Amino acid sequence: MSQYGGKRSDWLDLSTGINAVPFPHTDVQSQAWTALPDQSANQKLVESARTFWRVPKQAAVLPAPGASALIATLPSLAPPQTVQITPPTYNEHAAGFRAHGWDVTDTGPAQARVLVHPNNPDGRLWTAQDVTAPLTVIDESFCDICPQQSLISLAERPGVVVLKSFGKFWGLAGLRLGFAIGHPDLISRLAAWQGPWAVSGPALQIGAQALQDHDWAAATRTRLTQDADRMDAMVLARGAQLIGGTPLFRLYEVDDAAAWHDRLARAHILSRIFPYSKTYLRLGLPPVDGWTRIETAL
Amino acid sequence: MSQYGGKRSDWLDLSTGINAVPFPHTDVQSQAWTALPDQSANQKLVESARTFWRVPKQAAVLPAPGASALIATLPSLAPPQTVQITPPTYNEHAAGFRAHGWDVTDTGPAQARVLVHPNNPDGRLWTAQDVTAPLTVIDESFCDICPQQSLISLAERPGVVVLKSFGKFWGLAGLRLGFAIGHPDLISRLAAWQGPWAVSGPALQIGAQALQDHDWAAATRTRLTQDADRMDAMVLARGAQLIGGTPLFRLYEVDDAAAWHDRLARAHILSRIFPYSKTYLRLGLPPVDGWTRIETAL
Repeated sequence: MSQYGGKRSDWLDLSTGINAVPFPHTDVQSQAWTALPDQSANQKLVESARTFWRVPKQAAVLPAPGASALIATLPSLAPPQTVQITPPTYNEHAAGFRAHGWDVTDTGPAQARVLVHPNNPDGRLWTAQDVTAPLTVIDESFCDICPQQSLISLAERPGVVVLKSFGKFWGLAGLRLGFAIGHPDLISRLAAWQGPWAVSGPALQIGAQALQDHDWAAATRTRLTQDADRMDAMVLARGAQLIGGTPLFRLYEVDDAAAWHDRLARAHILSRIFPYSKTYLRLGLPPVDGWTRIETAL
Repeated sequence: MSQYGGKRSDWLDLSTGINAVPFPHTDVQSQAWTALPDQSANQKLVESARTFWRVPKQAAVLPAPGASALIATLPSLAPPQTVQITPPTYNEHAAGFRAHGWDVTDTGPAQARVLVHPNNPDGRLWTAQDVTAPLTVIDESFCDICPQQSLISLAERPGVVVLKSFGKFWGLAGLRLGFAIGHPDLISRLAAWQGPWAVSGPALQIGAQALQDHDWAAATRTRLTQDADRMDAMVLARGAQLIGGTPLFRLYEVDDAAAWHDRLARAHILSRIFPYSKTYLRLGLPPVDGWTRIETAL
């Protein structure tokens, strides 16, 4: 941003997959700020999560201060050997496993495997047949847009951990809330790493409210799907091709991704390009008042 | 509480050492909720912390989602052997080290040592001569009430980690914010365990505001010291003796701690008693409107 000028607040940030129309979060109870997060608030959040995601009965649910905190500790669940992570995908998984001494490989079989489902950036979906490693992490950070595709039913299998992110679909990335769902043995070891009060009072309260609001989720899915179509029409009309993505972010093939990134940045619109590709351009979806700026900049 | 009835919100909770008059926290920016916590907000918090606590230049500062999250991961900094933890003290330290396979002993020498400074519950202060182990954790969660006693100058020594808590002195335990301060090698390993965005946007913003407000801190110290004197006068008049504590909590010796706990609980006032002592009673300090209830109940 510093290269192109402008205040941070003047930029339109399309570089993430965070919903730009967040769940309403205005009314945090005073006690959520001042008291140690209590067991009943935690239990309420866990019960809301169980219902919302249809978590199998035998699986345990652990709220955490963001999915990224879980990604950083998950590799400690097994002795470091080799983990299969198929590129391209979200780079924090490989970074986390490497930090714990694991080798990362593109192809299996391996002692651990990461499936980002749907995948970031290309939207690829995996199936139960891909759950091949003794420790398999299924990162469903972007799956709330397509709940019918969820692999949550596998969460009670030994060695499977499903990750859920609150920040992206509900648009509250600053709140720091994510979930690990899996076999109670694995989940209790992750819980020990984060101590007894890892999730903030506001996150417990807002998270429970949001996960109980199935109508908001359904309306948000409809809106995001329409917005993704609108973005596709706009970008494809300029000669790009759609590779994939989800209704939270779109991945396009363009002639020169750096040139597109530059053109958008001059209009103070931040897009995402990738060190491993000269033609991939990823765009998140704007808030309601952002469309005209994009149209003009393209 | 369930035993004595009443709604949770009707109870006066004196069982913790959390300041009942919190730092004002009403005006959280919208972006702190919605965006991923950014590097500049993190840097601003770290700089505010450096100045407030007079952190030595060679020491690194890591914000975390609460001191308890750090207590859970600190034992991973060295291979599990024996840790010296002198009782009575805050029990999460021994629990954390045991979870990582350490043996806990009362007396040294040992490969690690924990000094809670001032100690919870008795207020005991330690000195530089007590920093005897290759890995020494100095937990200053309650030291902001007596900053002149801080051992922060030792934080640049190899093997020393100083912990700071935001929830207690600033009265915002639900926010989840704490700090590890120490040699950059140790701190970077702790950072790897929590991932890139462990601290929430509201915690980054409110934490920086509070640590820059040295006047609020000075006024709060004065008020808490006066309140501690007021509590002592009230309780000692009923035949208790003062053992110690800090101006955030007071530790008294009474004839029958369970009977005091029961008497207070009947008036819906929660106090703290300990499994290892029949005569220790710990009381936090009430909000402004809580004094009459305590006087009546005693």
